[in-house]
Amino acid sequence: MARSLGRIFRGFQSLGSLAFMKSELSNPPASVSLKSMVQTLPSVFSSNPRDFSLPNPSWGTEMRQLYEHYNSQCEAVTDGGEEQSGLWKRLPSYNRSLKYAAGGVYLSKIIQAKARLFTRNIRDPGAAFEYVIFANKKEQRCVCIFQAGHLLEGPPGNVHGGAIATMIDTVTGTHACVHSGPVMTANLNINYRSPIPLGSTVLIESSLDKKEGRKTFISCKVTSADGARLHTEATALFVSISVGQLMKG
Amino acid sequence: MARSLGRIFRGFQSLGSLAFMKSELSNPPASVSLKSMVQTLPSVFSSNPRDFSLPNPSWGTEMRQLYEHYNSQCEAVTDGGEEQSGLWKRLPSYNRSLKYAAGGVYLSKIIQAKARLFTRNIRDPGAAFEYVIFANKKEQRCVCIFQAGHLLEGPPGNVHGGAIATMIDTVTGTHACVHSGPVMTANLNINYRSPIPLGSTVLIESSLDKKEGRKTFISCKVTSADGARLHTEATALFVSISVGQLMKG
Repeated sequence: MARSLGRIFRGFQSLGSLAFMKSELSNPPASVSLKSMVQTLPSVFSSNPRDFSLPNPSWGTEMRQLYEHYNSQCEAVTDGGEEQSGLWKRLPSYNRSLKYAAGGVYLSKIIQAKARLFTRNIRDPGAAFEYVIFANKKEQRCVCIFQAGHLLEGPPGNVHGGAIATMIDTVTGTHACVHSGPVMTANLNINYRSPIPLGSTVLIESSLDKKEGRKTFISCKVTSADGARLHTEATALFVSISVGQLMKG
Repeated sequence: MARSLGRIFRGFQSLGSLAFMKSELSNPPASVSLKSMVQTLPSVFSSNPRDFSLPNPSWGTEMRQLYEHYNSQCEAVTDGGEEQSGLWKRLPSYNRSLKYAAGGVYLSKIIQAKARLFTRNIRDPGAAFEYVIFANKKEQRCVCIFQAGHLLEGPPGNVHGGAIATMIDTVTGTHACVHSGPVMTANLNINYRSPIPLGSTVLIESSLDKKEGRKTFISCKVTSADGARLHTEATALFVSISVGQLMKG
């Protein structure tokens, strides 16, 4: 049961403007019985859903090298079954989430038949958002390696400003969840400094600015893979919500 | 030739963070010979590309009614071939744009084979972004009717904050282009007030705040179709660029 629960909550990472995740850094929200939620879930999460944050053949050299760089510093489970600590933790990423019943306080249709996470709605590897997020618990920061596919075009040959905003929301929202539990995006303030060419790999690095009551403030920057070119800077504000609010909408 | 030129430039509307459009409201940029650009274009634009802003069977009642409301007030060409003026103008929307050569000052591959506009990268009607933008030249404002498909999920049952940001960038960027010609997004500042349920139709209204030199300031709000519920508020800043900058990247 504990394993299933962990798997379900990890599925909530990268949800965008209303994120919801259980992690080692936050206490589980107490306002709803998590156990009862889990018991009503169908087996979709237990049938090994695809983790989109694992390497695939579309990843270019920069994407792979950066992935290896952070993955080699991650916590891992040894052959003996023991947990080995690490500086970083790779966060898995799925394309489905739970549906809540609008107007109800219970999950009416547990899994939406057609709904897919916006950043994972295209299965063709390399065509759209290829990304993986690593969290650094000790330093309270996250890093995302993002390879922008040809379906994300805005200006000719470059990534759409909305696709960049989407990744910023995703990374900062995931970070806020890791730190504060269930949150909702309240503000995104994005400064675009230089365009990102389609096909390129960039780094998105977020850091925790402060937490004041229900508010979590995160900063973020997008740079070229070598860090030399600044593409985008942003601040984000998230507000903590209860599981009850998530259910009620 | 004039007709082809108009069609090509209209294809640039809704480009996101680097938009580029010729319209009646702006003078054509003078730094590059537009005629020479057009003469090198293949016939993709003349083979009637699909206009994604026209009604399709996925549109719900609210989407259709709002479309009819604005479309009935649009300028039109009468049977006699005369142009009839109107308060609004519907802006067409395509899924391809021109590619510029990175590091070059000419268009090396005129049309990218695989690249697609981010907001039009899924052809399945109703699955992702269904939207149409109308421009009101007299009042300096734009309105977008947006129906959010099931592939735009962020929080369970609701639209991803990045998808909302994408539409805000698209509408305000189109508005800035209509007013100022080729522009690039410099800043987006978005306040999320209430979530947008998947499948719902919302109104995105933008208004021109001011123009100072190369800067164009646009405000924007996202409301429920009846205007009663405020979902999102935003300000956007765009900086005018020359066609030469677009070519150089």
